[in-house]
Amino acid sequence: MIEVVTIHLPKKSPRNILQPMPGVLTLTTDFGTDDHFVGVMKGVILKIAPSAKLIDITHSVTPFSVTEGAFEIGEAYRWFPKKTVHLVVVDPGVGSARRPIVVEAGGQYFVGPDNGVFSMIYSRNLHSVRHISNKKYFLRNVSQTFHGRDIFAPVAAHLARGVKPSLVGKRVDNYVRGDSGKPVRTGTRCWAGMILKVDRFGNMITNFHVEEFPDVLNRPFVLLAGIRTTDKLIHNFTEASPTEPAVVVGSSGFLEVVVNQGSAAKLLGCANGSPAELSIY
Amino acid sequence: MIEVVTIHLPKKSPRNILQPMPGVLTLTTDFGTDDHFVGVMKGVILKIAPSAKLIDITHSVTPFSVTEGAFEIGEAYRWFPKKTVHLVVVDPGVGSARRPIVVEAGGQYFVGPDNGVFSMIYSRNLHSVRHISNKKYFLRNVSQTFHGRDIFAPVAAHLARGVKPSLVGKRVDNYVRGDSGKPVRTGTRCWAGMILKVDRFGNMITNFHVEEFPDVLNRPFVLLAGIRTTDKLIHNFTEASPTEPAVVVGSSGFLEVVVNQGSAAKLLGCANGSPAELSIY
Amino acid sequence: MIEVVTIHLPKKSPRNILQPMPGVLTLTTDFGTDDHFVGVMKGVILKIAPSAKLIDITHSVTPFSVTEGAFEIGEAYRWFPKKTVHLVVVDPGVGSARRPIVVEAGGQYFVGPDNGVFSMIYSRNLHSVRHISNKKYFLRNVSQTFHGRDIFAPVAAHLARGVKPSLVGKRVDNYVRGDSGKPVRTGTRCWAGMILKVDRFGNMITNFHVEEFPDVLNRPFVLLAGIRTTDKLIHNFTEASPTEPAVVVGSSGFLEVVVNQGSAAKLLGCANGSPAELSIY
Repeated sequence: MIEVVTIHLPKKSPRNILQPMPGVLTLTTDFGTDDHFVGVMKGVILKIAPSAKLIDITHSVTPFSVTEGAFEIGEAYRWFPKKTVHLVVVDPGVGSARRPIVVEAGGQYFVGPDNGVFSMIYSRNLHSVRHISNKKYFLRNVSQTFHGRDIFAPVAAHLARGVKPSLVGKRVDNYVRGDSGKPVRTGTRCWAGMILKVDRFGNMITNFHVEEFPDVLNRPFVLLAGIRTTDKLIHNFTEASPTEPAVVVGSSGFLEVVVNQGSAAKLLGCANGSPAELSIY
Repeated sequence: MIEVVTIHLPKKSPRNILQPMPGVLTLTTDFGTDDHFVGVMKGVILKIAPSAKLIDITHSVTPFSVTEGAFEIGEAYRWFPKKTVHLVVVDPGVGSARRPIVVEAGGQYFVGPDNGVFSMIYSRNLHSVRHISNKKYFLRNVSQTFHGRDIFAPVAAHLARGVKPSLVGKRVDNYVRGDSGKPVRTGTRCWAGMILKVDRFGNMITNFHVEEFPDVLNRPFVLLAGIRTTDKLIHNFTEASPTEPAVVVGSSGFLEVVVNQGSAAKLLGCANGSPAELSIY
Repeated sequence: MIEVVTIHLPKKSPRNILQPMPGVLTLTTDFGTDDHFVGVMKGVILKIAPSAKLIDITHSVTPFSVTEGAFEIGEAYRWFPKKTVHLVVVDPGVGSARRPIVVEAGGQYFVGPDNGVFSMIYSRNLHSVRHISNKKYFLRNVSQTFHGRDIFAPVAAHLARGVKPSLVGKRVDNYVRGDSGKPVRTGTRCWAGMILKVDRFGNMITNFHVEEFPDVLNRPFVLLAGIRTTDKLIHNFTEASPTEPAVVVGSSGFLEVVVNQGSAAKLLGCANGSPAELSIY
C-alpha cells in the first residue's frame, strides 16, 4: 500500500531536519588524550558545525615536536576526501607572534600555526597560504595559551561549514616553509637521511622515498641505521627474520627498516630523528 | 532554485532516511582505551540513539579518582552545545548502594553515579538532580559490575533521543555534593590550595582561579608548589624560561605553574593533588 | 508498506541534503593511536562510505596478538546494532598467503585476516566465511604491508554502504578456526584455564564462563591464579578486600579475580595468558 505524505520544511532551518553530508574534520595535536583539551576543541567545533565528522589522526605527537606533527599530517591527509579540513595544533609558540594560517592544497584545507608544521604539504602540492586574521571566526575571548580552542578549532569548523578561506584572511608568501625532510647527498653513491618515525611496531620509517631512490629496487645497497647495516630488501614483514634487520618499501613509499614481529628500533638503538645513511652501488 | 523530489520510503522506517540533527553525547571515564569497555558502551548507545554524536572527553581518569573525573568534566562541559548529554563513569562503588543520577545544569544533562563526580557542575550552576530509577531505560539484565553499560549508557542515550529527565526518576536533594575543590584561607594574605591536574605538558593546574584571586594580576604574590616558589607572572608560555617556573593564567582561568617547553611538574616534584600555597602582598 | 514523502530540495545537491541512517563500522587493531595508521584507514572508509559511523573498540591489542584481538572483538560485537561492520586488523601475516575474509554472524559483518582472530565469533554463532577476492572493492594499488588500508578498510566501507558479502568473494570452509579459548578438563573436579585479559583496573578475566561452570554460584570452589588461591565469591567490587583476592562473575559472564580498588594482577603476579585452575567440590 502506498501513502503520500507531504512534509513542509521551515524555510529558515532545513538544517534542523535534513542533514547536509557531513564535512570531515581531522585533528592532529600534541595534546594527548589524558586531558580535556581535545574534547574541548571538539565541543567548540560542534557548536559551530554540528554535523562535522570528527576524525582523530593522532594526539600523541611528542610535545612541541613540529617535525613529528608535519610527518603525521603529511602521511595522513591524502587518504581523506576532497574538502576535508585538517586541524593541526603542535604549537610551542602559542600566544607569541607566530601567525595562525589556513592552507589550501590538494583540494583540502589545513588550519594551524605558521611554524613549519605543514612543510610536507607544501613540498608535495601547489598551495596557497592565508594569515587567519578575521576575528569574526574566533571565539569571543581569545586566551594566550589555548589557540587550539579559541582560534584554530572555530576557524576549522567554519571552513567545514563552507566558509571560504578567502574570508578568514589574506594570502601571505612569507610563511615558514619548514624542513623539507629530504635526504642530503654526501657522496657520489651516498645520502644522509634520518628516521622520520619509529612506529608502534618498532619499524623505522626513513626519509628515503622509493620514488626518489628507485635504484634500491634493483641494485645493491647498504642502509646504515643505529648500530647495524642492512642490504636485504624484502617485500613483506613475514619475509624478515626476527633478529636480522631488513628493508621494506613501506605503505607510504618510504624505506623502512624492520624485523619480523619485533622492534627494529630497539634492536638497532634508534628513535625518531636518528640519522640513517644510504649507499647505492 | 528549488525542485521537487519524490522519495519512496518504507513506511516502517522513515527514520532510516531522514535524520534529525544528531544530539551530542560525551564520555568521560576511568576505563582507559585498552579494553573493550568504552566500545561496548558506544554500541549500547548507538542501538538506542543511532544518530548520537559520540565525543570522548577522556578515558584516562586515574582509576577510581572521583576528584579527577570531577575536574575533567568540570573543565569540558561548558564548551559543548546546549542539550549535550555528558556520560561520566568513574564509579568505585558500582554495584553498591550509591545511586545513579541525572543532573540538569547549564542547559545540559549529566549522567553518572552519585559520588561527587559532578561537584564542579554543582558549584557553578543552578542544577537539579534526579535519582535514576525507571528501569524501562536500563538494559534488560543489569550486571553488578558494569553499570556504565547497563544503566548509565542506555539512560544517556535515551536522553540524547529526547526523553525528558523527569521520566527517568524523581528529584532528590540529598545527593553527594563532593569537594568544592576551592582553596582555604589560612592567613590574612595566605591560602592553601592544590594541584588539580598536571597536564600532558607538565603544566601544573592549581585550584586558584583568577576570578577569585584577581589581585595576582596587579600585586606581588608568591606561589609555593613542590620544592620551589615563584613570583613571576607571564602571559604566554614563550615568555617562560625552561628552568625557572612561572605562573600563567591558564586557558580555563586557573593559575598554572609552567616552564617553557618542559615539565614544571617534574622540575618541582609535583603530581595531581599536591598541595600549593598562594600569598598575595 | 510504502509511503511517499515530497521534499523541496535545492537543485544542486540532493545528495548533500538527504542522508541515509549511518551504518556503524567498528575498528579493532594492534596499531595503537600514536601513528597515523588508524586515521588513514578512517579516511579511506569515509571516501567510500561518507556517512559511516566510526567507533573504535580498541587499537591497543598487543602487537601481533591474534588471541587478544579475538578476545576484544568477541567481547564487544554483540552490543552493537544489527548490520554493524566490524573491521579487525591484527595481522602479523600481512602480505603473505593468509587470506582476507568477511564473516557473517549474528546479523553482523566482520572483516579481517583469516588467522583465527574471529575464533570467538565462530564458537558462539552460526556463521559463514567468504574469501575476499573481488579487487573491485580494494584500493587501486595494494601495498604489501598495509592491507588494513588497502583491502580491509575499503571492503568494510563497501559493506557499510550496503554491498552484499556475496559480491566480495566466495564462501570457504577451510578457514582458520583458531583457539576456542575454552578451559580443559584435567580431573573429575578440576579444569585448566587461563587469564584471557588483565583489564585496566587489574581485574583478571579468566576463561571460566559462568554458563559453563554454574556450580561456582552454589558450591565450594577454589580458583588458583598466580601465587594465590581464592575460594570467595562476591557480587560486586565493593564487597572485595583490597588485599584478599576474590572471584566475581564479570560483566560478560567470565569469572574474574579481583581486589577492591586495586590490581589483582599485580598482587598475584599474573598477565594476559597466565594459567588459572578451577576446582569445584
